[in-house]
Amino acid sequence: MADTPPLGVVSICGSLRKGSFNAALQRALPELAPETMAIKAVAGIGEMPLYNADVRAEGFPESVTAMAESIRKADGIIICAPEYNYSIPGVLKNAIDWLSRLEDQPFADKPILLQSATAGVLGGARMQYHLRQVMIYLDALVFNRPEVFIGSASTKFDADLNLTDKATRDIIQKQLAGFETFVRRINKGRAT
Amino acid sequence: MADTPPLGVVSICGSLRKGSFNAALQRALPELAPETMAIKAVAGIGEMPLYNADVRAEGFPESVTAMAESIRKADGIIICAPEYNYSIPGVLKNAIDWLSRLEDQPFADKPILLQSATAGVLGGARMQYHLRQVMIYLDALVFNRPEVFIGSASTKFDADLNLTDKATRDIIQKQLAGFETFVRRINKGRAT
Amino acid sequence: MADTPPLGVVSICGSLRKGSFNAALQRALPELAPETMAIKAVAGIGEMPLYNADVRAEGFPESVTAMAESIRKADGIIICAPEYNYSIPGVLKNAIDWLSRLEDQPFADKPILLQSATAGVLGGARMQYHLRQVMIYLDALVFNRPEVFIGSASTKFDADLNLTDKATRDIIQKQLAGFETFVRRINKGRAT
Amino acid sequence: MADTPPLGVVSICGSLRKGSFNAALQRALPELAPETMAIKAVAGIGEMPLYNADVRAEGFPESVTAMAESIRKADGIIICAPEYNYSIPGVLKNAIDWLSRLEDQPFADKPILLQSATAGVLGGARMQYHLRQVMIYLDALVFNRPEVFIGSASTKFDADLNLTDKATRDIIQKQLAGFETFVRRINKGRAT
Repeated sequence: MADTPPLGVVSICGSLRKGSFNAALQRALPELAPETMAIKAVAGIGEMPLYNADVRAEGFPESVTAMAESIRKADGIIICAPEYNYSIPGVLKNAIDWLSRLEDQPFADKPILLQSATAGVLGGARMQYHLRQVMIYLDALVFNRPEVFIGSASTKFDADLNLTDKATRDIIQKQLAGFETFVRRINKGRAT
Repeated sequence: MADTPPLGVVSICGSLRKGSFNAALQRALPELAPETMAIKAVAGIGEMPLYNADVRAEGFPESVTAMAESIRKADGIIICAPEYNYSIPGVLKNAIDWLSRLEDQPFADKPILLQSATAGVLGGARMQYHLRQVMIYLDALVFNRPEVFIGSASTKFDADLNLTDKATRDIIQKQLAGFETFVRRINKGRAT
Repeated sequence: MADTPPLGVVSICGSLRKGSFNAALQRALPELAPETMAIKAVAGIGEMPLYNADVRAEGFPESVTAMAESIRKADGIIICAPEYNYSIPGVLKNAIDWLSRLEDQPFADKPILLQSATAGVLGGARMQYHLRQVMIYLDALVFNRPEVFIGSASTKFDADLNLTDKATRDIIQKQLAGFETFVRRINKGRAT
Repeated sequence: MADTPPLGVVSICGSLRKGSFNAALQRALPELAPETMAIKAVAGIGEMPLYNADVRAEGFPESVTAMAESIRKADGIIICAPEYNYSIPGVLKNAIDWLSRLEDQPFADKPILLQSATAGVLGGARMQYHLRQVMIYLDALVFNRPEVFIGSASTKFDADLNLTDKATRDIIQKQLAGFETFVRRINKGRAT
């Protein structure tokens, strides 16, 4: 596929703590991606204020517009997030609430991939299904399967937060390869 | 678009009663569809036995294999269904449970459109979000928006069950037009 | 607690196949229950016709009214069910759809406990959250936690379908003990 | 019921903007409540930082511990919240994420009532079902029905944000009366 232009994908992490398994997952993605997909982490959700329509009326924060611009330019978006209280982390949802109010809504028509790592057994499934419902409103296109739910995360990453579990690496590789096909298909269908 | 081959779409109704609003909705679809989309109702969910893996092991019922064949041949699927107890009608879910077990799973990679009519105010929204989750497993591609939730259905259909409400007809027309674009885009992306 | 009248709880299995893990789970419950809780299996969902309001208008099937009577007499209900296509099995939902239409709706105000066993890793979680939403409409009172999701079921039951996994037996015992407290509390609060 | 000690209920608003319909709803509650229920608004979600486990490790913010104390003292909690992007507002979820990490988790075993007002037709239903799932994890006891979904909110409140729609006032009164019964029943069952 020497002639295939590489896809530019951005990844967003839904946790702010330094030792986050999801941040570690995000760091592992580039080496697990197909050769023709470049994955670049975008930060910024931790700099956004709490969403308030009165604040918005005075102008969008720079952290919001900058992240929106990265999303708009990307061929696809990967969200790596923990599950908090059986749902989406508030900090991640707050970022989405800001981004969604921009006139040129950045998630519209974008291919989305979901991944999650949690200490618990279910690996963030409940969070992902809530996030999928959000993406309906945003008119984004969420990749179906395989789904990546990394449960019992402390057994899948080593002490330095490297993703060492082979089965997990394999399923992520498979998912990223499927996502590449999905993104290219949508792009091709879109083109006129 | 004189040269555009028409899309062949099948519709499935999730209610068995004769006076069903959703059956009436299903009957209204062909006249609301774009010229380049033919919508044909497929029946059969009422003839399927209750799903039982022991029964399946002896062979799939004819009602299941026949409906599966209609779905496989279609360019897209429209499901018109009521909401029973805040979720998918058991009778419709039973049909999906049967169909999903076929080796050549018929919903895989198919564009899906959801519509619902209910007596209540929410118009079947709860049912649709459950059905969307089912479609993730089936690896189908569900159209996002606009969504069609026909609440207070008795005020939208006349005594002969004709869909008379103008706003409802308009949103369905708009949704069907959006679905045509969605289906063609997916088909184009798929073809190689 | 010699003076405590025992609770009478009924269990319902959401799968019809003979070798069902959920039927095996249902059979294991009496020996895992607290001494002051008697758990009796009620069958019948496999005998119900597909729900059809026109059929209902001619009278409820005996299978429906009999199960409803067992539910009404019980102090609590346990539902053991697999997950089909990321949601409630159609056959179980069909039974609920029938039962819910009775004038003296049997689930109203009843304490409910959910359990699920599946071959997959998540153990039926997606099914349980859909079932919880159904129970809101039915105005039933669903026990919160601990939740019982038996994933990778073939490793938890032996070849004769005995529930042999110690950790699973422990969590079920703990859940049943919690459910007893929950049921007694609701009953006490109800009494006047 | 002259001898009945009044219930002390706190209400939380999930929106920060001044002209919020949900804040207006929250203000209308005391006059719609039964005589034996006092409803007091608690603020503070807008003062909490974005949740970050590293920040938490240095100590909980005062805004979090203060709100937690109000919740712990209350007989029940009412949450009035908008729906953002088909789910829980990030700002509200962020507050719950903070509160849930306290050692003496404040929502545990608390009766909860949900209400929502939105510009759209569904009135926040999608948000409420996500919030109900959160409450399972928190082991709170969410009131079932009637549910209050205030759709097309601009037609239910006047220009000064007074809740003027009679049908809406009636359903809220009915819901609050039902909630009182629910709270007293749980309290009675709890006491030993």
